[in-house]
Amino acid sequence: MFHRHMFRKAVILGTGMIGGSIALALKKHGLATQVVGMSRQEASIKTAVDMKIIDEGTTDPRKAIQGADLVILAAPVKVILAHIEDISKHLRRGCVVTDVGSSKAAIVDAAQKHFPPHVLFVGSHPMAGSEKSGVAHANADLFKGAVCIMTPTDKTSRAARDKVKQLWTLFGAHVKTMEPLQHDEALAYVSHLPHMMAFALVRAIPEDFLVYGAAGLMDTTRVAGSSSQMWADICASNYRHVAKAIDEAVKSLAEIRKAVVDRDEAALVQLFNQAKAKRELLEKKSHA
Amino acid sequence: MFHRHMFRKAVILGTGMIGGSIALALKKHGLATQVVGMSRQEASIKTAVDMKIIDEGTTDPRKAIQGADLVILAAPVKVILAHIEDISKHLRRGCVVTDVGSSKAAIVDAAQKHFPPHVLFVGSHPMAGSEKSGVAHANADLFKGAVCIMTPTDKTSRAARDKVKQLWTLFGAHVKTMEPLQHDEALAYVSHLPHMMAFALVRAIPEDFLVYGAAGLMDTTRVAGSSSQMWADICASNYRHVAKAIDEAVKSLAEIRKAVVDRDEAALVQLFNQAKAKRELLEKKSHA
Repeated sequence: MFHRHMFRKAVILGTGMIGGSIALALKKHGLATQVVGMSRQEASIKTAVDMKIIDEGTTDPRKAIQGADLVILAAPVKVILAHIEDISKHLRRGCVVTDVGSSKAAIVDAAQKHFPPHVLFVGSHPMAGSEKSGVAHANADLFKGAVCIMTPTDKTSRAARDKVKQLWTLFGAHVKTMEPLQHDEALAYVSHLPHMMAFALVRAIPEDFLVYGAAGLMDTTRVAGSSSQMWADICASNYRHVAKAIDEAVKSLAEIRKAVVDRDEAALVQLFNQAKAKRELLEKKSHA
Repeated sequence: MFHRHMFRKAVILGTGMIGGSIALALKKHGLATQVVGMSRQEASIKTAVDMKIIDEGTTDPRKAIQGADLVILAAPVKVILAHIEDISKHLRRGCVVTDVGSSKAAIVDAAQKHFPPHVLFVGSHPMAGSEKSGVAHANADLFKGAVCIMTPTDKTSRAARDKVKQLWTLFGAHVKTMEPLQHDEALAYVSHLPHMMAFALVRAIPEDFLVYGAAGLMDTTRVAGSSSQMWADICASNYRHVAKAIDEAVKSLAEIRKAVVDRDEAALVQLFNQAKAKRELLEKKSHA
């Protein structure tokens, strides 16, 4: 187990809802003596300091990470990639680094390319959050009961793996391990695709008809309220898998459409039963 | 306003969740002296009688409606169409008839063709219910705060319109009026399409990945747990509008797919912002 204040200086690059929640969780569990935040937005730092989510903040990533023994990359994927390049030569020996990016292959590749061997990096994806964003929604218990996928490779050190796993476990997450590419494929289906479907669905509805929307439509499109910028970033960083998942969904929809047009109720019942059975499996298996 | 016990004998043809809820609401508001239920399933009648949802029941629609002054057609659309033909010549003069079918044009056409002028028919679609089904989920307050769409035509009598509107209003529903075809087009988008998207989405996900599903996927696919039989019936009865709505959704998805493959983040942000803005409108306008 960790000792209290295992990290002297923990740094969060990207103080949004997830980064802020990590800062709060580090403090709640007494894991860091000092928590420093970095954001490109001064206002975000001010809010985080005012809400006592971080001890201090800066807009300069290199300044933020000086002397850090834990660095969490919690910005959008594209920004994480830029941060990796920017800070790679300035991290102290033995510094533990992880990230929270929603796609992993690009980040893990960049980290393995740029970080020197004395930096203890492993990729993470805590599957927590909601359609809300911003540090004001930070919550120390955000990761309790959530799945966190870690993506070590054969280049990942045992120490990086163990320390980051302990961190997520102390935050209350269930840690699972996957290859970065396998993660990106799975997430394209279970997370990125549902968002694309929700965005596409609500866009397709003529505005005049929205007033007739009931609970089913509300549920089905809830995630369409998520941050456009964040989702553009996720899609761009995982475009191959996202496009493939969209293709599979369109194929599935085309099978249903054919049975609809044929008014083939037996075929429709069969298709819907397949969906229903998988939905029941999901209900059993998911940690939602 | 209604007098108490305005109806001597109210008959529900189809004692599922919706039919059972109407029976309970009629009793709760003291609107009927006697409530008789009809189902093809003896077990469903037994449950409804045991739970005191109906006073008595039968499997024979013609027997059920003898002497009725209110008849509610609450079976699947295809069965409602059969019931209309079956009972049309046996309804007493002045009997008020409405239905709860999720598609309206076919039902309203059949009713106008088969019911004699002395029967007071108007179509209804109470937009209440959930992925649950069966009389055991009946609830006297199911319609409270829900939208109920009535679909009178130029052949509908003022009396039918007024009485049925009062009924839904007393049950707590917000009554709106639409043409039958306009209803079917709107519902294809706001109700039938979201179900098709949810069915298609969950079918497209490889089973091994379900374990990584989180809250977003749960929300987006919740309605995929709905009755397959009921949805096959709705799709078949509204196949033209449902197919058109699916086409619009696929078009919307194809625009998103193109921007994904192009890694065109500006285009993605624009597409997602359109969705987000419509989702906010929905949040304001819907009665969910």
